[in-house]
Amino acid sequence: MKESHSFHMTPEEFRYHGKKVIDWIADYYEKIESFPVLSPVEPGEIRSQLPNDPPLKGEEFSSILKDMESVILPGVTHWQSPNFFAFFPANASGPSILGDLLSSGLGVQGMIWATSPACTEVETHVLDWLVEIMALPRAFKSESTGGGVIQDTASSAALSAILSAREKIAGFSANKSGVVDKLVAYTSSQTHSSVEKGVKIAGIGADNLRAISVDSTFAMDPQALKQQIKKDKEDGTTPFFVCATIGTTSSNAIDPIKKIGEICKEEGLWLHVDAAMSGTAALCPEFQHLHEGLHLADSYCFNPHKWMFTNFDCNCFFVADRSILIKTMSILPEYLKNKATESGAVIDYRDWHVPLGRRFRALKLWFVLRYYGVEGLQYHIREHVRLAQEFASWIEGSNEFELVVRPPLNLICFRHIAGDEFNRKLMESLNSSGKLYLTHTMLNDIFVLRFSIGQTNTEKKHVERAWELIKTTAKKL
Amino acid sequence: MKESHSFHMTPEEFRYHGKKVIDWIADYYEKIESFPVLSPVEPGEIRSQLPNDPPLKGEEFSSILKDMESVILPGVTHWQSPNFFAFFPANASGPSILGDLLSSGLGVQGMIWATSPACTEVETHVLDWLVEIMALPRAFKSESTGGGVIQDTASSAALSAILSAREKIAGFSANKSGVVDKLVAYTSSQTHSSVEKGVKIAGIGADNLRAISVDSTFAMDPQALKQQIKKDKEDGTTPFFVCATIGTTSSNAIDPIKKIGEICKEEGLWLHVDAAMSGTAALCPEFQHLHEGLHLADSYCFNPHKWMFTNFDCNCFFVADRSILIKTMSILPEYLKNKATESGAVIDYRDWHVPLGRRFRALKLWFVLRYYGVEGLQYHIREHVRLAQEFASWIEGSNEFELVVRPPLNLICFRHIAGDEFNRKLMESLNSSGKLYLTHTMLNDIFVLRFSIGQTNTEKKHVERAWELIKTTAKKL
Repeated sequence: MKESHSFHMTPEEFRYHGKKVIDWIADYYEKIESFPVLSPVEPGEIRSQLPNDPPLKGEEFSSILKDMESVILPGVTHWQSPNFFAFFPANASGPSILGDLLSSGLGVQGMIWATSPACTEVETHVLDWLVEIMALPRAFKSESTGGGVIQDTASSAALSAILSAREKIAGFSANKSGVVDKLVAYTSSQTHSSVEKGVKIAGIGADNLRAISVDSTFAMDPQALKQQIKKDKEDGTTPFFVCATIGTTSSNAIDPIKKIGEICKEEGLWLHVDAAMSGTAALCPEFQHLHEGLHLADSYCFNPHKWMFTNFDCNCFFVADRSILIKTMSILPEYLKNKATESGAVIDYRDWHVPLGRRFRALKLWFVLRYYGVEGLQYHIREHVRLAQEFASWIEGSNEFELVVRPPLNLICFRHIAGDEFNRKLMESLNSSGKLYLTHTMLNDIFVLRFSIGQTNTEKKHVERAWELIKTTAKKL
Repeated sequence: MKESHSFHMTPEEFRYHGKKVIDWIADYYEKIESFPVLSPVEPGEIRSQLPNDPPLKGEEFSSILKDMESVILPGVTHWQSPNFFAFFPANASGPSILGDLLSSGLGVQGMIWATSPACTEVETHVLDWLVEIMALPRAFKSESTGGGVIQDTASSAALSAILSAREKIAGFSANKSGVVDKLVAYTSSQTHSSVEKGVKIAGIGADNLRAISVDSTFAMDPQALKQQIKKDKEDGTTPFFVCATIGTTSSNAIDPIKKIGEICKEEGLWLHVDAAMSGTAALCPEFQHLHEGLHLADSYCFNPHKWMFTNFDCNCFFVADRSILIKTMSILPEYLKNKATESGAVIDYRDWHVPLGRRFRALKLWFVLRYYGVEGLQYHIREHVRLAQEFASWIEGSNEFELVVRPPLNLICFRHIAGDEFNRKLMESLNSSGKLYLTHTMLNDIFVLRFSIGQTNTEKKHVERAWELIKTTAKKL
């Protein structure tokens, strides 16, 4: 029983239980392949095991931890399994988990520089490092006109870009008096839904988002963009924002950033580049060509929480001109005023995104970069791409399966030649086997299987086994 | 040296280093009072210790961990110190830190039910528990018309409320074609800056946010609200949203929710209630009267990451009618379609907030509720309020200091009678002593010291020592 004068866990108790939790996680990774990758539970099955009434008396920590095994694990879809090939990876790693644990332990709130200078300065420093490593435009460095900030997701980064663009085109009047002009934004028909959500949130309206047509690789057609902008201008509306994608969600298509960027410069539009998963590839010089033309972008983001072994949430958002972002997001109530902010010598990241509060997320990113080194990260990224290309070659060598599009990196879009219904059944059969998890998309109105390789512990044997299972399952159907 | 064929940390290495990190955190809490509460570093001091060039080769984990002590700690403002009385608390606890660690370890991404049913169902269940424990309106329960969701911050919750209100009043046309009507929102002059930020983001414009005057307790004056709404309607604009606060940031003022709610019902306005810190008090029946009238609210939020021993980020956002929120935020691209979503039998939390991705934040909240039990949480909340009231009585008994407003809960607003300049110097002198950290605000154009009691390990002796230090420092000035 806990002492009656305090219900807190003491540091000594924390040592004891904390080490049990560390062991629990290590055990989990050791046996992760024994679980069905996609949770097989029915809706309501997990809740039905939880007591209806809230706990009035405290419980021993050990009995809470026990429920992780019996109640929680059956309801977990194992994103960290090496047999997880669904959606995009959201990979984690030891150094990242431990960096994040230290962030929870310190419990600092880095809304402004003064509330924990290290929280701000490590973030700025590490994001500057990424500009160097990934050969991003120099304007994105904090010593230049721009800078980087960690946001939760690419959705929030897209929203921040849309708002900055909205304020820039309107001379900051929308923040003041609301959206009045008819603004028009552009993406390709393959762009992530977050841009539509952002445009709605910003008060611009989904009707004013144009879906530009794509070429045979599902990349945005710059000529179609140019024509649409021209048409919209003739119609008296105000084009203001383009989102281009390096590695679309559906099929990993690479929009031609340089051509799109030139059009944006010419027409005075904000260019945001979303490289949520694929940006990480730029850690390797041989993939940096995917970023060609990025110096023409006003903002850019990628997610170390997807493919860079840094557990969710960690989106790196860069801008070429920080003054616009800050002016768009800035607030300064009396209770947050302080000398450091007034001196102008510091960054207050609260003015770089929607939330005010923020945790010390830079720690996990700093830990990952130092633990792996650029060399280690490059090794694993290359390995994932190599495995994906090998998988693609198996598809090409098969009589029953076909590639739907040539994979530029680590996502393979393929299908069985037997048609949509067969592929849908194949996917369901594979996923319900528990041995792997993959998802689908539609490309040119055709049902396509997506096979995404990027989990931390995915090795050749997992990809080989998956391919065998796919073939034998197709035969049985 | 790490093996050349993999740069990953193995489960065995994770066991070893993880336990070192657990010890590091336990040590930190044991010696936390030996650090200056407010970091004394100068701008740039932390960065100057970081190597300019990014790490090309990986490092041993132990050498990274060493830098936590030498590089990071000097740049940390110790939010978890029992001598932290600044801003609001952002308290953490052992069970919360360990729940969060398990969330990082599992590394699941709960954007939709299917991507980890437990992530969604535990969240729904625990938020339903909170409705019971805190005696919140039944409409906020998932089995009713509403429900709860964990967001990162009260800023994001306010934005979600503003957007829902905007869509409701406009018949969901702003999402479609943009903001066109002149919409008007209302807060008190004391409301948190997040509402202004949300109104800007939503494309409504800060000029269309009315700051309603307050009474002598700094609570919103309902009559002034009613008159302003009338005037705005006469001017041809469309009032649509009111944010009332239970416990304002400046002075912990409690807006009269019932009266404001009646006006909102009468006029057809959305009422959002922000109880970011003070909502937690409703764990105790004797403080539930502060929520009187909450059944008239359309949305409500409070932050367990402020005063409920759950480390950042954890904002609980409730709505009375979830269909409006979901319709406002909903997206459904092909690659996220799945049977569970189509069946309508599950919650997909991606449609309850701005980001798409989300971590398993409910774990830490579940752990806190079970470890403390309602009884344990009540004990500590009552203790904080009792200490604050005692501190207030010392101020009242003093000849040199005065209360600026009667403290309803755990935040004391006071000042030395010697005027603004003296109080500013007093605050700076106290904070640079390193022995405590408090902040200020302006109330009726007067500089006021804020003393917020709510850190996990703050006990009577800390408050007593702080009072002694405040008195002796004032004498010396």
